[in-house]
Amino acid sequence: MIEDKNQQRTQLSDLGEFGLIDHLTKNFNINHKSTIKGIGDDAAVLNFDKNKIVVTTDLLVEGVHFDLSYMPLKHLGYKAVVVNLSDVYAMNAQATQVTVSIAVSNRFPLEALEDLYAGIETAAKIYNIDVVGGDTTSSNKGLLISVTAIGEVEANNEVYRNGAKPNDLLVVSGDLGAAYTGLQILEREKEVHKVNPNNQPDLEPYSYVIERQLKPEARKDIIKLLQDLDVKPTSMIDISDGLSSEIIHICKQSKVGCDLYEAKIPLDPQVISTCEEFNIDSTTVALNGGEDYELLFTISQEDFPKIKANPNLSVIGFMKEENAGMHLVTRADTKIPIEAQGWKNFNA
Amino acid sequence: MIEDKNQQRTQLSDLGEFGLIDHLTKNFNINHKSTIKGIGDDAAVLNFDKNKIVVTTDLLVEGVHFDLSYMPLKHLGYKAVVVNLSDVYAMNAQATQVTVSIAVSNRFPLEALEDLYAGIETAAKIYNIDVVGGDTTSSNKGLLISVTAIGEVEANNEVYRNGAKPNDLLVVSGDLGAAYTGLQILEREKEVHKVNPNNQPDLEPYSYVIERQLKPEARKDIIKLLQDLDVKPTSMIDISDGLSSEIIHICKQSKVGCDLYEAKIPLDPQVISTCEEFNIDSTTVALNGGEDYELLFTISQEDFPKIKANPNLSVIGFMKEENAGMHLVTRADTKIPIEAQGWKNFNA
Repeated sequence: MIEDKNQQRTQLSDLGEFGLIDHLTKNFNINHKSTIKGIGDDAAVLNFDKNKIVVTTDLLVEGVHFDLSYMPLKHLGYKAVVVNLSDVYAMNAQATQVTVSIAVSNRFPLEALEDLYAGIETAAKIYNIDVVGGDTTSSNKGLLISVTAIGEVEANNEVYRNGAKPNDLLVVSGDLGAAYTGLQILEREKEVHKVNPNNQPDLEPYSYVIERQLKPEARKDIIKLLQDLDVKPTSMIDISDGLSSEIIHICKQSKVGCDLYEAKIPLDPQVISTCEEFNIDSTTVALNGGEDYELLFTISQEDFPKIKANPNLSVIGFMKEENAGMHLVTRADTKIPIEAQGWKNFNA
Repeated sequence: MIEDKNQQRTQLSDLGEFGLIDHLTKNFNINHKSTIKGIGDDAAVLNFDKNKIVVTTDLLVEGVHFDLSYMPLKHLGYKAVVVNLSDVYAMNAQATQVTVSIAVSNRFPLEALEDLYAGIETAAKIYNIDVVGGDTTSSNKGLLISVTAIGEVEANNEVYRNGAKPNDLLVVSGDLGAAYTGLQILEREKEVHKVNPNNQPDLEPYSYVIERQLKPEARKDIIKLLQDLDVKPTSMIDISDGLSSEIIHICKQSKVGCDLYEAKIPLDPQVISTCEEFNIDSTTVALNGGEDYELLFTISQEDFPKIKANPNLSVIGFMKEENAGMHLVTRADTKIPIEAQGWKNFNA
């Protein structure tokens, strides 16, 4: 497993709050003309002219959303930003700014926070966003990261969850279930490591699914692709909780039903082989695994020719009248109602 | 001390994430035309036309920023919103929206979160802001609240920390030191309560300072007052960390010096009497106590006639060239360098 090889330990109390923030954010550049003022005042000042802005926020809590025994801090910083950007793209908007707040216990030395912020900085560079604010404080226990992401969208280009119509096609980007599968591998290796700390696992056969768990990407490219293809989805959501849960959101808010075709759900070969190894059903993993951060959207049938040959997009279902309900059509052509798995965090 | 008299306990796991958010936010109204879409999609959608927007965020952590043994949850929800609004007003902007995220352990029943959200709702009503998003998750320990506040300001009306000029006057709203003094009372009564749980303390003589700690207000009224008086400050900051620390921020960012007059620092009589009782120096409390959420700003001398009779505003100092340094001019007319107290959280 991944060990903290960092030998240097600088106590956070050596810096003080302002020194800490200055130190951690000193490499952050401002690139957007919409950022008038970033870090350093009571608030950031932004200017979007006539564009609408979108705002979204997520909390990541140690022991609930991540386990530092296998999640490197740099990856965690990256992921904390990316999962918020994913929500911005799900509005068909361009992400432009984030604020990042952390609560951290004294057990973390400065060098650990530097790793965390290096991941935040990497995400900011790759996705071209400005880090414009945040808060840094102590906690009694563990690490918590709160990110707020801001984006802009031209008038009437935003896409909500509630615009799907009967006969629309249900489309998903990329493939599903890999992040959850990767988590199963990491949890298994953690248990092995407890029993035999000298074990050096060969994780190469699982490289894709592990990367999808530790370093997910947000589908900024899909928003651009849809623009290039001149396709405006009728509804859109990102897949954070699992395909089932997101389909239910779209159907309930749009007041439509849906047939989802099991055979059409895109799965990476590594997900299929790993699910076989764990003796779990890959469709169940795709439906309920979550953390894929792919985009799920509906399009009018007349837009189908524009997307049909695209390797990044899969048509997986068909929207129906509300009273038809929401169903998974299995490979055996039976219909099973789609149900949300609910929220597991509070049951822990 | 304040006890939780709430007998009803509904487990959070009974609701699930979406049920919980829906339940807690069902009373929240949308009042601003700039709020196109609030809670319920991947992100909120806002539209400010040509106005600039300001964004600020703060984390409040149990055991670091608040102690639930004397902080009622309703007050905590109120305070979590207000401290962020204070940052918006410190930019000379109008607060319009907030997002509120909480991480909460299973020890809190639903009824506790209802109290917390009742406080958030009260702040939203009083300050006329829309709650447009957030995140609710579990934590391993304790309660953490992360609020992001958004405001709008007309072109070129925003006020930064860096605009103070030599010969400007330093002005503060309200009075200082009360929140810290109130905290001392609450901490003392907590210790008394530990020894004698049946003790019924008479807190009436401390009502003002306790309220300033438990239920601070943000000075929205001062922003309106300055507009009505046709005064645009040259720099502004809110007093969250203490007068010394905020003066240093303004001086460093504006590259000016400052003489602060001890005799001019506004103190409530209850602060003075309580400081005498605790045998602590009231000037030190005003300088370093923090959490007053008053506005500290500088104005050009030509604006002095507009503010001089106003009971809400006190001129407490005079800005100088940078090389003159930052000094407290005591009642005995000696000069003492102003120093920041630094950040105590990580030393705990």
